[in-house]
Amino acid sequence: MNFVGSHILSVSQFEREDVATVFAVADKMEPYAHRRKVTRVLEGAILGNMFFEPSTRTRVSFGCAFNLLGGEVRETTDIKASAIAKGESFYDTARVLSGYSDVIAMRHQLEGSVAEFASASRVPVLNGGDGANEHPSQALLDLYTIQNEIAGQGKDIDGLRIALVGDLKYGRAVHSLCRLIMLFNNIQFTLISSAGLRLPENYVEELRSRGHTVNLSDQLEEGIGQTDIIYLTRTQEERFPSQDEANKYRGLFRLNQAIYTKYCEPNTVIMHPLPRDSRGEASELDNDLNENPNLAIFRQTDNGVLIRMALFALVLDVVDQVDKHGRDVGWYTEKRF
Amino acid sequence: MNFVGSHILSVSQFEREDVATVFAVADKMEPYAHRRKVTRVLEGAILGNMFFEPSTRTRVSFGCAFNLLGGEVRETTDIKASAIAKGESFYDTARVLSGYSDVIAMRHQLEGSVAEFASASRVPVLNGGDGANEHPSQALLDLYTIQNEIAGQGKDIDGLRIALVGDLKYGRAVHSLCRLIMLFNNIQFTLISSAGLRLPENYVEELRSRGHTVNLSDQLEEGIGQTDIIYLTRTQEERFPSQDEANKYRGLFRLNQAIYTKYCEPNTVIMHPLPRDSRGEASELDNDLNENPNLAIFRQTDNGVLIRMALFALVLDVVDQVDKHGRDVGWYTEKRF
Amino acid sequence: MNFVGSHILSVSQFEREDVATVFAVADKMEPYAHRRKVTRVLEGAILGNMFFEPSTRTRVSFGCAFNLLGGEVRETTDIKASAIAKGESFYDTARVLSGYSDVIAMRHQLEGSVAEFASASRVPVLNGGDGANEHPSQALLDLYTIQNEIAGQGKDIDGLRIALVGDLKYGRAVHSLCRLIMLFNNIQFTLISSAGLRLPENYVEELRSRGHTVNLSDQLEEGIGQTDIIYLTRTQEERFPSQDEANKYRGLFRLNQAIYTKYCEPNTVIMHPLPRDSRGEASELDNDLNENPNLAIFRQTDNGVLIRMALFALVLDVVDQVDKHGRDVGWYTEKRF
Repeated sequence: MNFVGSHILSVSQFEREDVATVFAVADKMEPYAHRRKVTRVLEGAILGNMFFEPSTRTRVSFGCAFNLLGGEVRETTDIKASAIAKGESFYDTARVLSGYSDVIAMRHQLEGSVAEFASASRVPVLNGGDGANEHPSQALLDLYTIQNEIAGQGKDIDGLRIALVGDLKYGRAVHSLCRLIMLFNNIQFTLISSAGLRLPENYVEELRSRGHTVNLSDQLEEGIGQTDIIYLTRTQEERFPSQDEANKYRGLFRLNQAIYTKYCEPNTVIMHPLPRDSRGEASELDNDLNENPNLAIFRQTDNGVLIRMALFALVLDVVDQVDKHGRDVGWYTEKRF
Repeated sequence: MNFVGSHILSVSQFEREDVATVFAVADKMEPYAHRRKVTRVLEGAILGNMFFEPSTRTRVSFGCAFNLLGGEVRETTDIKASAIAKGESFYDTARVLSGYSDVIAMRHQLEGSVAEFASASRVPVLNGGDGANEHPSQALLDLYTIQNEIAGQGKDIDGLRIALVGDLKYGRAVHSLCRLIMLFNNIQFTLISSAGLRLPENYVEELRSRGHTVNLSDQLEEGIGQTDIIYLTRTQEERFPSQDEANKYRGLFRLNQAIYTKYCEPNTVIMHPLPRDSRGEASELDNDLNENPNLAIFRQTDNGVLIRMALFALVLDVVDQVDKHGRDVGWYTEKRF
Repeated sequence: MNFVGSHILSVSQFEREDVATVFAVADKMEPYAHRRKVTRVLEGAILGNMFFEPSTRTRVSFGCAFNLLGGEVRETTDIKASAIAKGESFYDTARVLSGYSDVIAMRHQLEGSVAEFASASRVPVLNGGDGANEHPSQALLDLYTIQNEIAGQGKDIDGLRIALVGDLKYGRAVHSLCRLIMLFNNIQFTLISSAGLRLPENYVEELRSRGHTVNLSDQLEEGIGQTDIIYLTRTQEERFPSQDEANKYRGLFRLNQAIYTKYCEPNTVIMHPLPRDSRGEASELDNDLNENPNLAIFRQTDNGVLIRMALFALVLDVVDQVDKHGRDVGWYTEKRF
């Protein structure tokens, strides 16, 4: 694909070679994201950071990524405070706001809303999550983390064994990750969930039709045995028809150090799109794993900055100029990454 | 007037020559606002962007304008989160906050509030809208758009024929525009509204006393026939005593392509301060006009950035330094303006 | 103490020499804070400004301080919009967010929350107020103001006579100030409050055990007679068990110009952590004092920017580089400080 000036709306836009391009640029961003160097390549550019659905992690990650390239961020976080509440169409909002900034990152609770907005935007739009639909930068940072974590073991994504655990029905991170990972070869998926929260059938069929192996399970212990990656998820309670319905699934799949030690291979990497629900009755990922060196959840969020920097650099066509505007960092940056 | 260090609170501060000054500086801002060039003239300066009444468009427009001059923006958007909720006076809020920034843009729902705030501020304050009272930067961007749109037809503002349509009672954009446009000569106003939403009598009298022609009508079709500009407005439902009262006026004046083709001169320019209400029953400006080249509503909002850059540059006395700090843009900026 | 890379969580961290260090750096910041010069020493650095409890003054002050050093600010203000609402622990939030920024300023309504957050953070955390507990940058700016105000009278902090007035029970600014001022010698405290809002006994005992004089009073007039500083406070109504309970204390201690003239020494300095409650029935500090040259309340908030710049510069180890990145200001900055 041609990234320059493009919207990034869905993982379906990506071919395997495009993923490789993003990851190569993300590698280039590492010294800047990890504060060994500063670049000012986007000095004077403006990101419109439009988060119509509440978010701290993704919103700040996009904003920091743009700041780290030298650009400014103008943020809108409250849909009730916006003209949409006065009856303005997405078309109008997009036409207006795309006159203010050089690129837009957007999250909205309605599926398809970001694509609708993008169709009227005069600047590139990056989807930061539209309802239960897509979250492409999350899928990219997840797969980038997988690649980096298993590289030390001499493995690559082809032939990967991955267990997806928990709410596979409503989690858009899982859906986008499946769509992306299926571009590679010979993946072994183990899908561990309650019957009511299974991965939608169309995803399962697509995985199989591309020649991947898909095993289903409703037992955590039997599913996590021979796998490179365990990817756990929070039950997306806010997307359930009712809280009572959500409560039925709370705490059903919980990984802790004892279970990990007993059932997993010693190098199995633990991932989670975050936030993890640390309330006692939920706790899908126990705090006693916090010192486990294979817990990659905070390396995931760190990688999110690299991936978003890469997307901005690609879409705004400044990849080759980043280093030219670079210099050393002069302030305290120890104990960070 | 002397712009340097001044508050911009009301269009009443402006003489005709002052309007010309703002427009000339706005012209200078065009290469920066349209991303052909970058300037860093205000690098290190801080805008306090204080929006105590919800706003996306105006708030982001002020913020981007300041960023485009190289400055930083610190934003406050929630009055309930502010010290005013703990009993602090405008005097105290203004004294304190004006110690933090170099200039302040402010919106507040109370009429006169911004002027009261400005009287205690130690830095220049730009009124971003105070209730139904004033919105001077909107009036300036509207008139700037009018000038630019009709210039191609060999016309200027003197002798302009303009139809103002809809809620002429509560719309502060209309009030401020009337005050500004009356500085010019021989304007022909056609005021099209329901009897209950007419332009307040004091405005009508002032327009007539300055020698302008004022025609009143409650029929859209008969009023828009021989006019250079049709300026439509949204019914300001949130300022009505009740929703029932507001509902009485919904959808009474609606322009679409068929009506435009039948009744308007071929070059008549369509304007609107936005947001337009695109809900079916309202729709004062139909979406079937979106491809009409005379629809200037998005050029209006684009011009808002130029006008606000001009006001900042004038008030902070950097007009002559803008180009000195300019350089070319190095990132993707196509298909924008 | 070693400031570089440290959290600033409590005034208890400071020895007398540390206070002197902060004040010396604050002095260095004056030309930048007062807009005679610009420095870009932190260009490329990011502040995570996390205000989970509403705040305008402190939030904007931290943000502006960082901008004035050349850095960028990414802000989070709504706890309901954050992952904490989805069950995320402080540990996770801190691990994630500290991967995005170079330093964090944080306010939260729970006592001890900021310290808990800091223990998991990978970057330095500055406490911007945790419930009724601590607000160290406020105490530093208060004491810095005291030092500067009385310096003109040939006095220094040793031997200071200070009257603390009003809500001495719930006001964290008072608590932090007492802890800091007790590091000096031979202070004479006059504590003026209702019996129900007295300074907690442990503070009184600690002041006396360090050799300071503590007088208690419930009469404003008799307490403010022979004192260098009167430090008034707002009743912290939001921390009372009920509004009825809070109402009992409203308006009990009110200073105005007539009382000041009759009872105070001519150079007595009037201070207040702000916001002052200017509603008629409260008015602990009357507006008729606004032109009194000894009213230092707005110099206090101005000094807050210097103190916060100093803390950032110390923690990020750029004190010696500030001037190297300095240059003159080119825009309008008159009538400010």
